[in-house]
Amino acid sequence: MQTTTNKLKIFNDPIYGFITIPDSLIFDVIEHPIFQRLRRIQQMGLSSMVYPGAQHTRFHHALGCLHLMQKAIQTLRSKGIEISTKEEQALHLAILLHDIGHGPFSHALEQYIIEDQSHEDLSLALMNKLNLEFGGQLDVAIQIFTNQYPRKFLFQLISSQLDMDRLDYLKRDSFYTGVVEGSINSDRLIAMLHVKDDQLVVEEKGIYSIEKFLLSRRFMYWQVYLHKTGLLAEQILIKALQRAAELASYGENIPMGKSLQFFIDKSNLRETDLEVILNRFIDLDDIDILNAIKAWQYHDDFVLSELSKSIILRKLPRIELSEQKFTDEYLKALQTGTLQVFGVDESNLDYFLFQGKVKNRTYNAKYGPINILLKDGSVKEWLAFDGHFNSVSFTEPVVKYFVSYPKSLKL
Amino acid sequence: MQTTTNKLKIFNDPIYGFITIPDSLIFDVIEHPIFQRLRRIQQMGLSSMVYPGAQHTRFHHALGCLHLMQKAIQTLRSKGIEISTKEEQALHLAILLHDIGHGPFSHALEQYIIEDQSHEDLSLALMNKLNLEFGGQLDVAIQIFTNQYPRKFLFQLISSQLDMDRLDYLKRDSFYTGVVEGSINSDRLIAMLHVKDDQLVVEEKGIYSIEKFLLSRRFMYWQVYLHKTGLLAEQILIKALQRAAELASYGENIPMGKSLQFFIDKSNLRETDLEVILNRFIDLDDIDILNAIKAWQYHDDFVLSELSKSIILRKLPRIELSEQKFTDEYLKALQTGTLQVFGVDESNLDYFLFQGKVKNRTYNAKYGPINILLKDGSVKEWLAFDGHFNSVSFTEPVVKYFVSYPKSLKL
Amino acid sequence: MQTTTNKLKIFNDPIYGFITIPDSLIFDVIEHPIFQRLRRIQQMGLSSMVYPGAQHTRFHHALGCLHLMQKAIQTLRSKGIEISTKEEQALHLAILLHDIGHGPFSHALEQYIIEDQSHEDLSLALMNKLNLEFGGQLDVAIQIFTNQYPRKFLFQLISSQLDMDRLDYLKRDSFYTGVVEGSINSDRLIAMLHVKDDQLVVEEKGIYSIEKFLLSRRFMYWQVYLHKTGLLAEQILIKALQRAAELASYGENIPMGKSLQFFIDKSNLRETDLEVILNRFIDLDDIDILNAIKAWQYHDDFVLSELSKSIILRKLPRIELSEQKFTDEYLKALQTGTLQVFGVDESNLDYFLFQGKVKNRTYNAKYGPINILLKDGSVKEWLAFDGHFNSVSFTEPVVKYFVSYPKSLKL
Amino acid sequence: MQTTTNKLKIFNDPIYGFITIPDSLIFDVIEHPIFQRLRRIQQMGLSSMVYPGAQHTRFHHALGCLHLMQKAIQTLRSKGIEISTKEEQALHLAILLHDIGHGPFSHALEQYIIEDQSHEDLSLALMNKLNLEFGGQLDVAIQIFTNQYPRKFLFQLISSQLDMDRLDYLKRDSFYTGVVEGSINSDRLIAMLHVKDDQLVVEEKGIYSIEKFLLSRRFMYWQVYLHKTGLLAEQILIKALQRAAELASYGENIPMGKSLQFFIDKSNLRETDLEVILNRFIDLDDIDILNAIKAWQYHDDFVLSELSKSIILRKLPRIELSEQKFTDEYLKALQTGTLQVFGVDESNLDYFLFQGKVKNRTYNAKYGPINILLKDGSVKEWLAFDGHFNSVSFTEPVVKYFVSYPKSLKL
Repeated sequence: MQTTTNKLKIFNDPIYGFITIPDSLIFDVIEHPIFQRLRRIQQMGLSSMVYPGAQHTRFHHALGCLHLMQKAIQTLRSKGIEISTKEEQALHLAILLHDIGHGPFSHALEQYIIEDQSHEDLSLALMNKLNLEFGGQLDVAIQIFTNQYPRKFLFQLISSQLDMDRLDYLKRDSFYTGVVEGSINSDRLIAMLHVKDDQLVVEEKGIYSIEKFLLSRRFMYWQVYLHKTGLLAEQILIKALQRAAELASYGENIPMGKSLQFFIDKSNLRETDLEVILNRFIDLDDIDILNAIKAWQYHDDFVLSELSKSIILRKLPRIELSEQKFTDEYLKALQTGTLQVFGVDESNLDYFLFQGKVKNRTYNAKYGPINILLKDGSVKEWLAFDGHFNSVSFTEPVVKYFVSYPKSLKL
Repeated sequence: MQTTTNKLKIFNDPIYGFITIPDSLIFDVIEHPIFQRLRRIQQMGLSSMVYPGAQHTRFHHALGCLHLMQKAIQTLRSKGIEISTKEEQALHLAILLHDIGHGPFSHALEQYIIEDQSHEDLSLALMNKLNLEFGGQLDVAIQIFTNQYPRKFLFQLISSQLDMDRLDYLKRDSFYTGVVEGSINSDRLIAMLHVKDDQLVVEEKGIYSIEKFLLSRRFMYWQVYLHKTGLLAEQILIKALQRAAELASYGENIPMGKSLQFFIDKSNLRETDLEVILNRFIDLDDIDILNAIKAWQYHDDFVLSELSKSIILRKLPRIELSEQKFTDEYLKALQTGTLQVFGVDESNLDYFLFQGKVKNRTYNAKYGPINILLKDGSVKEWLAFDGHFNSVSFTEPVVKYFVSYPKSLKL
Repeated sequence: MQTTTNKLKIFNDPIYGFITIPDSLIFDVIEHPIFQRLRRIQQMGLSSMVYPGAQHTRFHHALGCLHLMQKAIQTLRSKGIEISTKEEQALHLAILLHDIGHGPFSHALEQYIIEDQSHEDLSLALMNKLNLEFGGQLDVAIQIFTNQYPRKFLFQLISSQLDMDRLDYLKRDSFYTGVVEGSINSDRLIAMLHVKDDQLVVEEKGIYSIEKFLLSRRFMYWQVYLHKTGLLAEQILIKALQRAAELASYGENIPMGKSLQFFIDKSNLRETDLEVILNRFIDLDDIDILNAIKAWQYHDDFVLSELSKSIILRKLPRIELSEQKFTDEYLKALQTGTLQVFGVDESNLDYFLFQGKVKNRTYNAKYGPINILLKDGSVKEWLAFDGHFNSVSFTEPVVKYFVSYPKSLKL
Repeated sequence: MQTTTNKLKIFNDPIYGFITIPDSLIFDVIEHPIFQRLRRIQQMGLSSMVYPGAQHTRFHHALGCLHLMQKAIQTLRSKGIEISTKEEQALHLAILLHDIGHGPFSHALEQYIIEDQSHEDLSLALMNKLNLEFGGQLDVAIQIFTNQYPRKFLFQLISSQLDMDRLDYLKRDSFYTGVVEGSINSDRLIAMLHVKDDQLVVEEKGIYSIEKFLLSRRFMYWQVYLHKTGLLAEQILIKALQRAAELASYGENIPMGKSLQFFIDKSNLRETDLEVILNRFIDLDDIDILNAIKAWQYHDDFVLSELSKSIILRKLPRIELSEQKFTDEYLKALQTGTLQVFGVDESNLDYFLFQGKVKNRTYNAKYGPINILLKDGSVKEWLAFDGHFNSVSFTEPVVKYFVSYPKSLKL
């Protein structure tokens, strides 16, 4: 008799073809409102203002990670690494939920909303909440996620320079933006994974693939994630929220949903208990932000409406990106120009003229080394190879400075 | 000296690689708020509830159409068909704007919102509005769009069974859903276009390609566009809006944005002039609808909150799809069950138990015939070929009936 | 300790990414000269004269089949169908070797070379030969291949209307020719496989996918496999071999390799024992044929050199393809014209003027029915569904007639 | 009336979709036997022994280059660079024919066959031959090809670090091998081309794309073109030809075709005039080489048959690749081992134990600089940018040493 239940589901994926849900617990977690919320959070925030194809969601990315994790487990087992059924399920859960604490839009906005809590902390809090509901079935997943599980390589599959998260998001973001240069061969990278002394390692023949992977990531950072227009839109979004908070703190009526209102008033973060914050948090998604911005276009406050319009109508100010710091002289000239052109109060200057910096490291030891398994069985850090590229260029952060000012300003 | 201006822009597209903006008028039209609004309207409505990759927007689709139109013009010119620079620009404008009157979400919802006006009428009204702003530069585009331009094949490139709209949306929707079976070879179809006696025709060698194209379209209808879950979500969305309107008409406070409020109150459509309607319309997009639905989850009215939750939490009722009409007996049993299970008032029954039908024609002569240019120079309708498939199966509409009722109901 | 041996190999594949060799027996079979020979036999014969990308080999196709078989086994097991490790390996071997008896170039040429033996018979003979060498390890594979194994669905994975062979070759041939319309979703088809009463069945939700699959196959036949130019090139190749055989039988010196010489002389097929034939056969590949044709361009015999040149220089005669039989009158006129134009002996007329027919069935019950597993657990043949297409058009063979004659001939 | 002639042909291409033949002269050149010969020369030589998908031909690559050239011309014209119709056709011809002088298999084998003549010289000789036949219509193409045409950027489209040849072969080879990491975005690179002071330049926003392009090329070199197994197969092939020549020079009968025989006997290259050499050359392709190797498997000479078998049966000896030179000690040990294991004459040692080196430069100034057009209109060499990678690593050649010896040898 046919025993297929609805729970053995497959999802269509333009990248991997099909993504299979491995068991009914995973199915139930995906069906949970906390996970379904990820359908309303775009993976790449405002990058779609530059790359119109970049509309994919964190929901889809999380499923993609689940798929790659299944492949990684299969590969490691075929090489004789034992992974129990329990560990397997825990890995599936941990990778599926690794981003569950992401707020709407970008990391930058998130920091504004949740301030002193990282999205990893929120992910953990939400995983704990789910664990309660699912009667402890997420115990091992949480141990792995928090790196408290004895076998360390399991954590590295979730969080390291070669984790399944990166392997999916680089491939997926490259695919949807159409920036094919950023594409990575996640299949090949997974095929070369191995475990040695409880560490995730890469077989020696993969040293060029690692280099290629790191360079693709680097390319994506400068060409896409830190593209100046996307960066600018994100900054404007934060400015708009700051202005709304400022006006609200004076008692002005600023239209917005209840959950956004909750986070805009920073005092709430201090006063309430975690459960209340979490419940507000899981009600908050891209829709709330965009809806508020749409409404604020028509607000009486010039600053708020200008910032909001510049996003909705895509009439962004000018931004310059430079490898050198901008001179005080230049910034002073911009300041004078901005005050004259807009005729705004000096107190509002920061909304129309602002600067900052972005940086990225190609190889980031903060997430642990990438280790290579030599043919003789020994292990050596990838960076330590007689690389054909100066290793400093991989480990040193690249910093860029930006300044934004009104488009009508001519110096 | 370098004369590249920002206006000669290219867009990345995962499907075609790059989409080039041919001139500065087209650039300015794309930059216009009326067009930018399409960034906030998904091409496939709620289909992403079934196919998580289907997040692409009407903005991106319109750019895709522009790209195919450039190719079609190039092909026809290479075959000796003269198309003036003016006609070329008009074709670009007409295809870019052909969907400008689309409301948020699906056609179904649109019909609820704009009632007796088709989205083509609204597209025309918005094109006229733009034409005023651009000092008459859209005159020819509008003539072509309304089929008043003397050369009829230009209209057929915009609207026919082989128009650039279909060639892009089938390819794009297939790509983003990952339903590769629906993919069409738009390149080949365009390469075989020709013009004979002012009619768009397809060269004889293309008869199998036409068949394949029609069957791909048919596949997409039944597998994707009319997928029962997507269909259901759409019906629920309309029900929620109807309920909100009903409650609002009793004077209840139903949270929603001003533009949605405008359309919810049907009396507005009759009383105000077109300009007012248009201004409200171009402020309305997916964000407004989703934001309202999110808020309505928490409304006191059981019906409104149930319907809204079922979308946001993706807890949809059951739907059955059948090639036969459901019997009165069966429907009666469902009715009894629904009233008992939910214990709702009979007056609200229609919100929880409803039926309808969907249909699709593989070959739809309403949009004009597909004509084949034989090697001897004569023209013959595609359908008239000694087809290997019974032509009736192409022209006869396929009808399917659906009924939806609470999930907890067991018969 | 690292235990990876060279035998756990992966192959790069542009279509599936990676193809994994599941165990060392499979590895050794792939390394065997009998299998390596497939590297020198193109999958699509002379189709590359029409589609220049179609250069892929039977070697690559066989590996692709192996990959799909691994997926199919994984799917069926996940649905509770037990497949033992022994059966699994046998399925891998059987699908890998299903085409091992293919001769160089097309089926047509093959029939000329091996006459009364099908390539399936030769495949079996070669499998038996391998089985001897591998000490009986292919026993079960051979039982499955010859449909003598008790569990019948295993045979159907190797040979039926939905076997892994078709699922790979349609996808692969579509990919390499660039005829994207012929592409099938082998992932989805495999995901819907199930077993009921020892029969391979397809889950009900797959009925449209089956239709799409059959129509893609049909498209590939008429657009690619039976493309008139490819068909013609193949006919010319056979004619050249026939002419060479004819001349050789008169004692003329016709340069060619020893193995080709063996098969050209038909008396060899009757006189020698199978072992001798097999040894000659496995030495014969595309290289022998093309090399002979290249040499024959310079032969004194006008017929042989004309035919050979027309392939090497791609100066093919004219071919007409028609759904109706050509009239005697028309054929008579062609005959008169051909004799006059070429001034050849009437005895050689058949080399320059020839006709024939090709046919294809969309649904071919000869390979068993395609059965659908309904939601209630019952099984129904796909054809028996209230199809939207007349089922006759699926089961009735489509026949086309062709005639070829010199290009310079004008009627 | 329909005026489409057969000459306005399109080719299917899995990569670009369709490749259009722009005019009838180009069509006639493609139809010419000299060009048709490229159908029988694989682009990647013996790489298919490692990457089974790599079966594409130089014919297909040349068509791909033609396609990219059409795009490049379109881009440059859209930026205001005038290119006359005559220059356009010349560019098409020059890129189509840039590789026409390629011999069978790899560059390495080619050097053995044509010794002191580069394939560029042969390409030129063949272009001159064609020019005669086509009544001088290739005059401008030849001027551009030899860099004697006044406008220098036209030459750079044919031959430079960013020529259309590289843009196609990297994309194509990456595609067919399935080594997706090597894929480049030829569309983006072409979209950023410009001309300044008669030099081909890249717009400033392209500096990361250039880096990515160079690194992809570098990846393809080490992962694919110089893959140790492919490299080894190529060396063995050369050894086999050398052995055949050696034996032939002693008067032994070595079966092979006439044209190969011509090139094997080096005295022919000195004695005859160019026309004779060319006629032999255009008769020589992969088929001749493979056919000879197949036959030589059965030759009495142990060396010749061993070398030939190792290719046909893919039983290759061992190869080691190292960034350091092998020590004399190690090589001596290998020598002793090889003589003992094989028991061959010391005079034949070089056929079974040989070494060499390969090198590659990521950025090769020999082909001219890559120049970047800054926003202020000035030009700066790409290398001179404050690169994030040490520029030395780009310009310095990477050298690797290899040694090959019998597989049975264990040290």
